[in-house]
Amino acid sequence: MNDDPGSTARAIEFWFDFGSNYSYLSMMRIEALAAARNVKIVWRPFLLGPVFRQLGFENSPFVLQKEKGAYVWKDMERQCGKYGIALTRPSTFPRAALLAMRVAVLGANEPWIGDWCRKIMQLNFVDDREIGSIDVVRDALDSLGLPAQNLIDAAQSDANKLSLREQTEQAVNKGIFGAPTFFVGGEMFWGNDRLEDALDYCDAIAARQ
Amino acid sequence: MNDDPGSTARAIEFWFDFGSNYSYLSMMRIEALAAARNVKIVWRPFLLGPVFRQLGFENSPFVLQKEKGAYVWKDMERQCGKYGIALTRPSTFPRAALLAMRVAVLGANEPWIGDWCRKIMQLNFVDDREIGSIDVVRDALDSLGLPAQNLIDAAQSDANKLSLREQTEQAVNKGIFGAPTFFVGGEMFWGNDRLEDALDYCDAIAARQ
Repeated sequence: MNDDPGSTARAIEFWFDFGSNYSYLSMMRIEALAAARNVKIVWRPFLLGPVFRQLGFENSPFVLQKEKGAYVWKDMERQCGKYGIALTRPSTFPRAALLAMRVAVLGANEPWIGDWCRKIMQLNFVDDREIGSIDVVRDALDSLGLPAQNLIDAAQSDANKLSLREQTEQAVNKGIFGAPTFFVGGEMFWGNDRLEDALDYCDAIAARQ
Repeated sequence: MNDDPGSTARAIEFWFDFGSNYSYLSMMRIEALAAARNVKIVWRPFLLGPVFRQLGFENSPFVLQKEKGAYVWKDMERQCGKYGIALTRPSTFPRAALLAMRVAVLGANEPWIGDWCRKIMQLNFVDDREIGSIDVVRDALDSLGLPAQNLIDAAQSDANKLSLREQTEQAVNKGIFGAPTFFVGGEMFWGNDRLEDALDYCDAIAARQ
């Protein structure tokens, strides 16, 4: 039983990776935008690396194509300026953040998921910290007042590791080829530039019902 | 001598290829947007195929990556819907349009350049015609009341063929890796999604002067 017949439509799936710079832009914007429209965020962390490898790329296109890579950081500066979001170009890119991603899978339905995701993104794209390190993850959990060791242990359980692997396979099966990607009512939207369109589509679905 | 000291800044270079679907979106929008801001369009047709090959790709990424290709046409439908632009998915993609591109280089500073570019884009992305064919080019020139045979002869002169080749080399040298690409005051903006930002940048430069 579902008390709110519109609840399924008024949700946006947010597929992201902490290493992805355009996921960072969406991460810092999605909660306010979704709340303003009464849209629920369904958090879908997945590993972009295996998705790229599945598509035949050994690394991010922003690394493999130097022209595109050079452009992307200019674009990021301008986009961050437009949105009023801080940015430091990470000294390592893209940063793997396996443990932090596992914590995100573990906490996907927890009230702290948004805080966690923004915290890790800020450590990567503002503070230029090694978000792949267990010490950085522990400090980040501590800073949010979360039980760091318990969550790290749970994140590293076989079941939770499998959850992230399965979610990554699901990304491939859904035709995801980059991040961020949004799904609304089965419709796919790729890239931070489509976040507003994806949210508009929630309203379009609701209007049809 | 330049009578208008702001004239250099209030210009946008529009780098495009008639085969490029996102160039189509910009083509149908740029003239009205630029006119509303008193910005001059500098028309820069170039061949995307050689640029892709220079970057190591044998074809458009929308053809080489089937997931991205499938997505792009959904995105095109939605974007065209949003902008109120007609769209028929071309039965051949990407379409080479060498002669039509040569006419565009020839006419880049002529009063009919905008009409020509929109006409060819419409033939490709609405009427699904073979814009690579000399007959289609001739009919298109006729339909605009232009001297078809004269322009076709001039477009196929060695000097004009060289102009298009040189402009394509210039695209590579400027770090262009896709289309459409815009330049404003030396700053590069990639993709139809950045057209408004590029035009905003004209105002930002003017405000600084």
